Amino acid sequence: MTGTTTSPERATIPADRYATRIAAAQRIAADQGLAALLIGVGPDLRYLTGYAAMPLERLTMLVAPAGAGVRASLVVPRLEAMPARRSSAAAAGFIDLRTWEETESAHRLVADLVRGAASARAGSAGGRPASLEIGVSDSLWASHLLRLQEVLPAGFGPASAVLRELRMVKDPEEIALLRAAGAAADRVVDAIAAGRLVGRTEADVAREVRERLLDAGHDTADFAIVGSGPNSASPHHEASERVIGAGEPIVLDIGGPLGGYGSDTTRMIWVTGGDPARGPDDGFLTAFAVLRRAQAAATAAVKPGATAESIDAAARDVIAAAGFGDLFIHRTGHGIGLEGHEDPYIISGSGLRLKAGMAFSIEPGIYREGEWGMRLEDIVVCGTDGPDVLNRSDLDLRVVAGT
Amino acid sequence: MTGTTTSPERATIPADRYATRIAAAQRIAADQGLAALLIGVGPDLRYLTGYAAMPLERLTMLVAPAGAGVRASLVVPRLEAMPARRSSAAAAGFIDLRTWEETESAHRLVADLVRGAASARAGSAGGRPASLEIGVSDSLWASHLLRLQEVLPAGFGPASAVLRELRMVKDPEEIALLRAAGAAADRVVDAIAAGRLVGRTEADVAREVRERLLDAGHDTADFAIVGSGPNSASPHHEASERVIGAGEPIVLDIGGPLGGYGSDTTRMIWVTGGDPARGPDDGFLTAFAVLRRAQAAATAAVKPGATAESIDAAARDVIAAAGFGDLFIHRTGHGIGLEGHEDPYIISGSGLRLKAGMAFSIEPGIYREGEWGMRLEDIVVCGTDGPDVLNRSDLDLRVVAGT
Repeated sequence: MTGTTTSPERATIPADRYATRIAAAQRIAADQGLAALLIGVGPDLRYLTGYAAMPLERLTMLVAPAGAGVRASLVVPRLEAMPARRSSAAAAGFIDLRTWEETESAHRLVADLVRGAASARAGSAGGRPASLEIGVSDSLWASHLLRLQEVLPAGFGPASAVLRELRMVKDPEEIALLRAAGAAADRVVDAIAAGRLVGRTEADVAREVRERLLDAGHDTADFAIVGSGPNSASPHHEASERVIGAGEPIVLDIGGPLGGYGSDTTRMIWVTGGDPARGPDDGFLTAFAVLRRAQAAATAAVKPGATAESIDAAARDVIAAAGFGDLFIHRTGHGIGLEGHEDPYIISGSGLRLKAGMAFSIEPGIYREGEWGMRLEDIVVCGTDGPDVLNRSDLDLRVVAGT
Repeated sequence: MTGTTTSPERATIPADRYATRIAAAQRIAADQGLAALLIGVGPDLRYLTGYAAMPLERLTMLVAPAGAGVRASLVVPRLEAMPARRSSAAAAGFIDLRTWEETESAHRLVADLVRGAASARAGSAGGRPASLEIGVSDSLWASHLLRLQEVLPAGFGPASAVLRELRMVKDPEEIALLRAAGAAADRVVDAIAAGRLVGRTEADVAREVRERLLDAGHDTADFAIVGSGPNSASPHHEASERVIGAGEPIVLDIGGPLGGYGSDTTRMIWVTGGDPARGPDDGFLTAFAVLRRAQAAATAAVKPGATAESIDAAARDVIAAAGFGDLFIHRTGHGIGLEGHEDPYIISGSGLRLKAGMAFSIEPGIYREGEWGMRLEDIVVCGTDGPDVLNRSDLDLRVVAGT
């Protein structure tokens, strides 16, 4: 273990920021003709209130009526009142807390709050409330949405239509956390590549990755893809009991949140077992050189105003021109922040234009099923005049003995 | 660390079981008038197919048409085809795999599969398809449900109405896994209670709990509630930077899955710092004796045919009779299996009758806000003639020096 732990100077989100975020969400919701946003446990709730509640079956929900100057309420089970009260937004008095008892219907309580706010708004406008349109958070459980649809006659749509715009553009503190997470993951990659690999199972290496991620300050170690030999051709491979042999490639794709914000980086290792004859063959090296150029081309294309599809195309064109187009079977990247995967998605067909502060992965790959696969991944922030690459570890193929 | 790792003889679910489970779900769905079950990533999918997919934004969904002898299809993003193909149900050929490309609409693909199956069924019955009723898995993301509601005109309800009956009654292998998880958690409780506590932060102790849970064979260390002093009064307290002092109670509530099946146990510790004068006072001891009796009474009431509310009442009556009724602010327990919290809930108002094989927590608590709280929790399986208690560690208040 490196012995490195949480750095004491870790960035934090100032409490006032939550008031700004909630007000912005309420304003955009009103602009979109919504009556309210209903935000369950998950990244949207954490973004708006700082409350990182456990995702359990009891309903916890921020009820944020649309418009200016209306108080939002956080509905929580009574036995979670203490942590809810300590959340940044509640502790600072920006939102009201409404607790519910074990035998109450939390969904009816939410419905009443929505209707109450809508009536007050219609009343103050001298009219009757129109038909309600509600935005619900993406990761709310279907079981909660179905119950809300039962007790609250309304149109329901995704709250991400409101929150996407806000969450995509990161605050400076958010970028600082992403940078710290990236640096921590880089150290883990370097340590794994420098250690023994040959003769160990993928699962054993993945376990070491997870321990090192935590040791480097991550909150949790969410994923540790260790794809060796033919398993490298499965992009979302789960580390298995396969024993890593000499003369094989390894896809190492690791990450998790640090201070809530994700790391996600992929590097390629080739283990020789110390036998120079077991290095990568020309076919692999040729493909890798293409991949390296594709990753660099997409990164270089990052600037405000560029479309997401243009970044995807920058990588895809290089790979296609080399004849590997059919083997690049996924999009080029995904946004990252409080979620490991979030908007903006760097994908063909997306005309979304990058803005300064957006953060996303650039991770082209080439996969020859049954033989080998390869991927290189950095997290990149769109700066005001170009890319700000958060991962700094060596992108070259790491040819190591691994013994 | 104890050095104990995964026991080699861990129980596994036989592959044939998945065929049985899928067929049973399809049959019950037909009995309930549903056209299909749509099961997203999560415990229901794992229960039916053995596939423990990562919960990400790309749609992975089992489409299980209702009725007998109809094939179910697993819709997966192409880049997860390899792990999906290796899932127990797919590897054994019980389900078909349908992959989708990055720029396709997975939701339309699901809708087409549902309509195709419904038409075939109506056709073979010589009639037109009736209006569709669909069951969706509880933890499916709202964003997916909203898109399905757009592309598939149908009534949507919870698939748990079908799956609850199946999942609540555990197979012998599931009970074996719950028992192994419980034994592993017991060892962690004992190790923590025997170690240094005074002068450490709750978060530091929680970190040790997580490491020990993994070391004892858990897949992940999902929670480690360490509530000291007044924090013990918050049932879902998140371990904080509070430093544990001498003369304080600690609620230790820990758990996570092992082989997919959860542990969850709570024990009470009192740390004296080695000073006999800093032991628990009479008020605390009196309440603890009540709690201990309440927990024992609820456990003793477990048998086939008893209602969930009768188990809750068995604990609640003891606590209320002692004058602490207002301080027991949550239900008595929750089911446990592939989810940490699942049916059956042991709660007032539930007439659900226990059956042999049901597994759930019994965890009464008494909480005096601002002062102290206490809870005792075992996982109990309803046996054919009484309770089968999976946690075996000492339920008494552990009065230790903690230095």
